[in-house]
Amino acid sequence: MASEKEMRNIGEAHPMKSGDGLYSYSNNSYLQRGVMNAAKQIVSEAIVENLDILKFSPSTTVRVADLGCSVGPNTFFAVQNILEAIELECQNQGLDSQIPEFQVFFNDHTSNDFNSLFSSLPPNRRYHAAGVPGSFYSRLFPNRSLHIVHSSCAIQWLSRVPKKVVDRSSQAWNKGRIYYPSAADEVVEAYSAQCAEDMARFLQARAQEIADGGLMILIFAARPDEIPHSQLVANIMHDMLGCCLMDMAKKGIVSEEKVDMFNLPVYHMSDQELEAAVERNGCFSIERMESLPPISSTLQSLVSTRHKAQAISFHVRAAMEDLIKAHFGEEILDQLFDSYSKKLEQEYSLIESAGTSALNLCAVLKRKL
Amino acid sequence: MASEKEMRNIGEAHPMKSGDGLYSYSNNSYLQRGVMNAAKQIVSEAIVENLDILKFSPSTTVRVADLGCSVGPNTFFAVQNILEAIELECQNQGLDSQIPEFQVFFNDHTSNDFNSLFSSLPPNRRYHAAGVPGSFYSRLFPNRSLHIVHSSCAIQWLSRVPKKVVDRSSQAWNKGRIYYPSAADEVVEAYSAQCAEDMARFLQARAQEIADGGLMILIFAARPDEIPHSQLVANIMHDMLGCCLMDMAKKGIVSEEKVDMFNLPVYHMSDQELEAAVERNGCFSIERMESLPPISSTLQSLVSTRHKAQAISFHVRAAMEDLIKAHFGEEILDQLFDSYSKKLEQEYSLIESAGTSALNLCAVLKRKL
Repeated sequence: MASEKEMRNIGEAHPMKSGDGLYSYSNNSYLQRGVMNAAKQIVSEAIVENLDILKFSPSTTVRVADLGCSVGPNTFFAVQNILEAIELECQNQGLDSQIPEFQVFFNDHTSNDFNSLFSSLPPNRRYHAAGVPGSFYSRLFPNRSLHIVHSSCAIQWLSRVPKKVVDRSSQAWNKGRIYYPSAADEVVEAYSAQCAEDMARFLQARAQEIADGGLMILIFAARPDEIPHSQLVANIMHDMLGCCLMDMAKKGIVSEEKVDMFNLPVYHMSDQELEAAVERNGCFSIERMESLPPISSTLQSLVSTRHKAQAISFHVRAAMEDLIKAHFGEEILDQLFDSYSKKLEQEYSLIESAGTSALNLCAVLKRKL
Repeated sequence: MASEKEMRNIGEAHPMKSGDGLYSYSNNSYLQRGVMNAAKQIVSEAIVENLDILKFSPSTTVRVADLGCSVGPNTFFAVQNILEAIELECQNQGLDSQIPEFQVFFNDHTSNDFNSLFSSLPPNRRYHAAGVPGSFYSRLFPNRSLHIVHSSCAIQWLSRVPKKVVDRSSQAWNKGRIYYPSAADEVVEAYSAQCAEDMARFLQARAQEIADGGLMILIFAARPDEIPHSQLVANIMHDMLGCCLMDMAKKGIVSEEKVDMFNLPVYHMSDQELEAAVERNGCFSIERMESLPPISSTLQSLVSTRHKAQAISFHVRAAMEDLIKAHFGEEILDQLFDSYSKKLEQEYSLIESAGTSALNLCAVLKRKL
């Protein structure tokens, strides 16, 4: 079964910063929590509208998976929200005695901190919990075994950096940058093609794993179709990080070649790109696709531009630190994120003016019968 | 759901020594591996005899759980053995195309090193893997969701030290010892009662989780009914460890009171005790119960008594170190296990003469329809 082995190896790991320290993902994932809060109502409504509660008998086990769960508390919040929606709907339909058993699978890369995840599981949870290691760009679960799949702030992570952007002989070689928004069209196309390939694999795996009529709720950082890549706020933020690395290269702190070979494995898909991927796959219908309300209020509550810049820097560090450390070494981290914080502060007007382009999409897909 | 929360808190964690160092469980679990090797044939036969292969359709997912899995490689070996037996039987019956999908749940306490477990999963495995944190003395899985439950060298661990043996006002107070074989009858009875209580909870949980006709294979260190507790080789080994701790108390290295309050949460059930527990539960039939061939050959291959004593010392340390560290502190470990090794060497004749009483039982239970 070499093909299965190959499939398991698909997807590089990009673990969020573990532990509970200053720069940890646990303490710097409130923006992601904001996204989930914004999606709460949509998720609840989608479940009520689409999941045939009456099919559950007391002997049914409803199996839920959170893909790219990282560590708590966001993943527990998401799961709780889904379970409450099902329980409430059972009660509303007078089926209190038929609330099903739940089994929840928390999935992330093998290198995710599952020990932390398990030790922080809510003690009063009403579900059987399991951890599932592996990339969601491969098969993870048995055929037709899941009823609800949820993924938040995860599928914008590509399975890998597109090969072409680190190939000197390619027109898509991304010299002097770590990301695509200010790069040549060939670079953007290489990222877009990698995303299409990844989504094909993602949807193919889930089409096999989700039971007929089951739901998939995807929440992800996206790009409105009408906004160019270069004007997307998240892209501007990531591009600024690249500028800081190039500044360090000019000062001789890191080699320019190392910066050339480093690229972020993240892509902001547009709603049209998702629709095209779902259509090519053919196994799902899109029941809903909605932009989530902007979560910029989280940052607006901070008093100064400096504090806002620092909050963004911490947020990006929690997500990117391990990736940068693996490529450049640990010793550059503090200096890099210090200068990143300053750059964000100096050029905050760029972020502010692009503020309305911040977009998170919530898509509800249903497995066709 | 307070009762469920209570259930989740049942069972103290006794994690095996993690990592891959000199004293790690990974490097000191070859005796356990020997036990599993000895059970291999019984497990294969039990599956062929009891599991109705014809019931599997290509759409069936066979769910297997290994309870108290610790870290690899033994748990992977056990699972592989079970899966191969099913696959072979499918082939023998000409049902090659109907080999089912497998989902394997690796269970152990939350404090088990799941990160190590996941990172050492066989890359060419033919099953979907999941980790399930929690005590097997509580519910872990949905109703009727498992087909085969396996547990090796785990259920001799009690959920807790019996309360009475650390209660000064009780007749079962186990002063001056850390184990029951050379203690008063009341102490033995307290251990036996704790085991009966634990087995009741264990069987009750599994009766709910295992599908009709599903199998449970329990391999555990046991006591032949006709052999007194004090003559069981494992008990002699553990008692010697207690003597070493008392020697350290006499020298003032640890307090005698601390030794009085420390007891090993391990009990060697006899086959009659297991039969009685299964009968009280009522949901399982015992299909097979066999003593495994002695695994003393593993030790006999070592050239000197000194090496044998050291091997036993390492083996006991891998299993007990964390428990001892939590109670006495890390600083006594090296001295304790040095003196333990010497004591085992000096009194090796006691172990040798009790050698035939070493017993591992393999019991195959079937969930009644």
